[in-house]
Order: sequence, then C-alpha cells, then structure tokens
Amino acid sequence: MKPSKPKRKKLQVGDYIAGVETGDRSVLAQAITLVESNAPAHLELSQEIISQLLPLTGNSTRIGITGVPGVGKSTFIETFGLHLCEHGHSVAVLAIDPSSSISRGSILGDKTRMEKLSRKPECFIRASPSGGNLGGVARKSRETMLLCEAAGFDVILIETAGVGQSETTVRSMVDFFLLLALTGAGDELQGIKRGIMELADAVVINKADGDNKLKAETTRQEYNGALHYLHPSTDGWQTIARTCSSLTGDGIPEIWETIQEFSHLTEASGVMEKRRQQQTLTWMQTLLDEELNRRFFLNPKIKSLKPILENQVLNNEISVAKAVKQLLKAAPELK
Amino acid sequence: MKPSKPKRKKLQVGDYIAGVETGDRSVLAQAITLVESNAPAHLELSQEIISQLLPLTGNSTRIGITGVPGVGKSTFIETFGLHLCEHGHSVAVLAIDPSSSISRGSILGDKTRMEKLSRKPECFIRASPSGGNLGGVARKSRETMLLCEAAGFDVILIETAGVGQSETTVRSMVDFFLLLALTGAGDELQGIKRGIMELADAVVINKADGDNKLKAETTRQEYNGALHYLHPSTDGWQTIARTCSSLTGDGIPEIWETIQEFSHLTEASGVMEKRRQQQTLTWMQTLLDEELNRRFFLNPKIKSLKPILENQVLNNEISVAKAVKQLLKAAPELK
Repeated sequence: MKPSKPKRKKLQVGDYIAGVETGDRSVLAQAITLVESNAPAHLELSQEIISQLLPLTGNSTRIGITGVPGVGKSTFIETFGLHLCEHGHSVAVLAIDPSSSISRGSILGDKTRMEKLSRKPECFIRASPSGGNLGGVARKSRETMLLCEAAGFDVILIETAGVGQSETTVRSMVDFFLLLALTGAGDELQGIKRGIMELADAVVINKADGDNKLKAETTRQEYNGALHYLHPSTDGWQTIARTCSSLTGDGIPEIWETIQEFSHLTEASGVMEKRRQQQTLTWMQTLLDEELNRRFFLNPKIKSLKPILENQVLNNEISVAKAVKQLLKAAPELK
Repeated sequence: MKPSKPKRKKLQVGDYIAGVETGDRSVLAQAITLVESNAPAHLELSQEIISQLLPLTGNSTRIGITGVPGVGKSTFIETFGLHLCEHGHSVAVLAIDPSSSISRGSILGDKTRMEKLSRKPECFIRASPSGGNLGGVARKSRETMLLCEAAGFDVILIETAGVGQSETTVRSMVDFFLLLALTGAGDELQGIKRGIMELADAVVINKADGDNKLKAETTRQEYNGALHYLHPSTDGWQTIARTCSSLTGDGIPEIWETIQEFSHLTEASGVMEKRRQQQTLTWMQTLLDEELNRRFFLNPKIKSLKPILENQVLNNEISVAKAVKQLLKAAPELK
C-alpha cells in the first residue's frame, strides 16, 4: 500500500480507478465516500467506478462476524486482524449497522476500539455508513467490500451489530459467517437472535481465558451437540464450535485455519462459486424489488392510501388481496 | 354442520355467504374452488365473499405441521384430528405444497391417508391447490383458512410437505408451529431444513411406541437441550420437545394441552394479537411486492433483458446497481 497522495481538486473516474488499483488509501476512502453518498450524481459516478473495477474483485476471503453486545466483537477483530496481518494478509474491516445514525459509536464508531489494528499499514478500517434503510446500507457495504478487494485486501471482515435483519444481510454477502458467543448455555444466550445459529459456519466461544477456560470448553461441547441438530449453513460443511481468547490470543490461529479449510473445501466442491453467484443474483432481485416498491410509493396518493387500507384490513373490513388491488388501482401508470 | 344442499345452477355472492355461514360443506367447497381458481372473474367474486365473511374469521386455533417425508405427518394428523373431534372441536385440515402439480398425491393428494378422520362429520379435509407459484398457493391457503373459520371450524391444521419456502409460508399464517421428528439425533435429522427448528413452537418426536419408546424419550431430552440454545419462535414461550405415538395415541392429549396452554399464555400477553396483526401486514406487503414484480416483468422487453443483464453481472462486466438501473430504464411507464 502506498502512502496517501496530496489531495487533488476533483477526482475523475480514471483517477479513482488508478488510485484504488494501486491501493492508495486516500483515494479508496474517497471512493467509499462516493458509494455512501445519497446524491444521484455520486451514484452514477460510483457505479461507473465499480463496474470498471469489477475484474479486480472477488479475490478475498469474505468473513462475517456477529454476536450480542458484550461478546467482545471489537477485541476479537483486533486480535484476529493482527494475527492475519502478521501472517502476510491485508485486512479490511467494515461494519454493517443500519441503526448507526441513532446509536452512533456502538459499532466501529471510532477506531479507538481497535487501536493496534488501526495503526497497521496492512489494515483498513471503515465505520458503518450512517443511517438509511437496510437496503441502502447493504448496497453501500457490498460496494465498499468490492472497492477494498480491488484495492488488494485479501481478507474482508464485516462486523454487524445485529440490529434488525443485518445478520441476514451480512450472511448474504460473505463466504464464511462467524457467530461469537460466551460461556454458559441458555440464559446468557437468549440474546442471540432467532435463526442466527443456523446462519453460522462457526460458533466461537470468546473469553476462554483464566477462570473461564474450563467453562468455555464445556460450552463449546454443548454447542457442538446443539449444532448437530441444525442443518449446516453451508452445504458440505459441518458448523463447528471453537473457543478463543481475544485477550491472550489462544485459539485465534485455529480459527483462521478453520476458515482456510472451509475455503479450500468449498472452492474444490464448487459450493463457493455457486454461493457467490447465488448471492449476486439474489442481491440483484432484492435491489429491483426495493426500487419497484420505492417508486410505487413515490405517488403521494398511494402513500396516503396505504395506512388507510392497512387499517381496514386489520379491522376485518376488507380482504388483503382486495386492499392490494385497490392500492394498485390508484397507480394509473401501471397496467 | 348441515348436510349438503342439492346443487344449484349458479351461486351468487349472497348464496356463498349464507352457505359458508351455516357451515354448508358443499358451498364451502365451492367457495374454496373459487378461491383456488386463476380466472380474474373468480378472483373478483372470491374477494367479495371473503371481505364480507371477514367478521366471522379469526376465531380458530391455527396450527402448522411440518416434518420430513416418512415422519408420519398424515398419521399424526389423523390421530390428533380424531382426538380433537372427540373433544368437541371441529377441525379443518389444509395442505400447502407448491410442488403438488408435480408430486401430486405426495401430500393429502387423496383422503385415503386419513380415512377415519375424513369420515368424521366434524372434520373437513382439503387437498393442496395444485401448482402455481408459492405466492399464489399462499394466498389460496390463507383464504381457504379464513373460509373454514367463517364456516365455524375452531381448529385449523395446515400441513406442509416442506418444499421450497413452504414452512416459512405456513409459519407466517399460523399461531402455533409444530415440527414432527423421529428418534435419533444427527444423521436422521439432516432432512430437517435449515432454520426450521427455530420456527417451531414444539418439536414432537413421533413413533414413540414399542421398542422405540425409550429411544424417543432420549431424543426428546436431547432436543430440549438443543432448543435451549435457540431463540424461541414465539416471545414468552419456550419451544418444547414432546413425544407421541400416532399409532397408540400416547402423548396426543398432552400435545393439545400444550397448544391450549400456548394459546392462553399468548392471548393474555397480547403476543397472539400482535402476531396476527403483523402476519396480516407482512402478507399485504408480500402480495404487493409480488404483484409489482409480476407487472414489471409483463413487459417482454424487460423480461428478455433480465437474463442478459444477469449474465453480465455474473461475468463482472457490470455492477448489480447498474444492471438494475438499466432494467428500470427499459420500463418507460415508470419514472
């Protein structure tokens, strides 16, 4: 990675592409800002940049990381990221948090929580794009991931605070999904949301150090027992439970080995390629559906009619199908 | 329930409503046929009927039942349904199987699989609407459920073969979701799809009889252990594992007691009302999205453009957002 160039007046498409290609951090950061912008002109420009950089994308290991607040996501990413840097990898850390406009700072809000990692030249940390709907946040995060890949980062870590549907969103853009957990079954785990266990390729019991070490091993075994009852998230890969300490670094190398094993296995079987293709096509459909829905409700008549019809539906005054029909009738441009 | 009237030439809206209200089986069956029809005129008529009958709906316990082939769904429903009939309930059994046009007969294809139950006057069995997309099947099943409620059935059992997204569809229209399973962890359970465990309000180990009884009890305990790690499907209700034998009837009364307990609890807490309202609003949004998508692709230019753009996206020639933009541009009637 080269040091930042002095700031130029206004970058053109070619400048962005050349800058990202050579791993220029400042240009990369500006390209991401463009992706995160909601201005139509910026959207046009960023799509042009991304389209031209696409041939350089897809060469990283994409890892999603989730877990309830207090599980130690930031500390884990710091320790895990440092381990990767020490082993010759360049790491980009991104975050998805659709609520970040409200709970600013709760997730990667500043880099002080990953102090050592943020000082590594092989690492790039980018806070969550602020606010907006999940669809918007998802698009921005996906495109940021592609830009980081084009800039040469070979491991992308995507952290999610687990708000709303954000785990599903992250799962739909990564190769490997890692759920961080703590010792103790049941009660403490109630914070793990519905369905998240079944999205995971690995469950990692964090804070397996000191007095907690034995307990963590018991929890790991219990998790492996429970995982036996769940359909694995990835075809041909049995979701596995591991322990680690982000404090001492115990178990961290084994987690990276597990992920590498996963990558080799799924690449050889073709599961990886199939997953990425499916992710892309599903993403295209999602974006289209969202846009159709958004445009439909641009019509103020329809927008104001919706809550009225919803109310009638909830009061058993009109059937759902009839309400949808009336809503569609109010849009004269649709057949 | 009254015996069937002699067939009339052509029923009017008022005839359907009067017939369904008084529990006339023949009229109910004809109303369902109308709901299942794909003819636009029938859609108009059926929506009118349903809208007028809505005040009579919502008074049943809606139970979804799933499980892998061979788990004994039909036998379970027969035994469970007979138990309900003997205790003063009237039971409607419906099925959701979006693949039924292909695998006709695999699920409720004929009534011979629930011979005793189908002869009960308190029971009404309706096979799956044939073929079509899941959205269509979902609409038809929902509306059939409403018609059955208006006809006075107080327990609705909805069976699903578990093809595609059908479990999620059933979960989104019932109060209580029951997963049937067999003895033996791991291997045998691999047939249970990803995420289904976390949709369930109860896991019932079927075939707990004879030599299998002890093994079933062990499996039940293992399931309860595993369920401890999952977020319950319903707020305030811990998903529970039970055993039963559809052959001997052992455990069947306890399952109904569990469901009643669930109903009392969720009604008192308001969780039930909230769930049903949420189900209705989500359903309305789903129907709208499907219709917007369908209408968008009615344009043959757009329809033929889609696979071309998908191909370009998969070949990294164009970004997803750009592809979606091009697709939308091809629709002149949209802004």
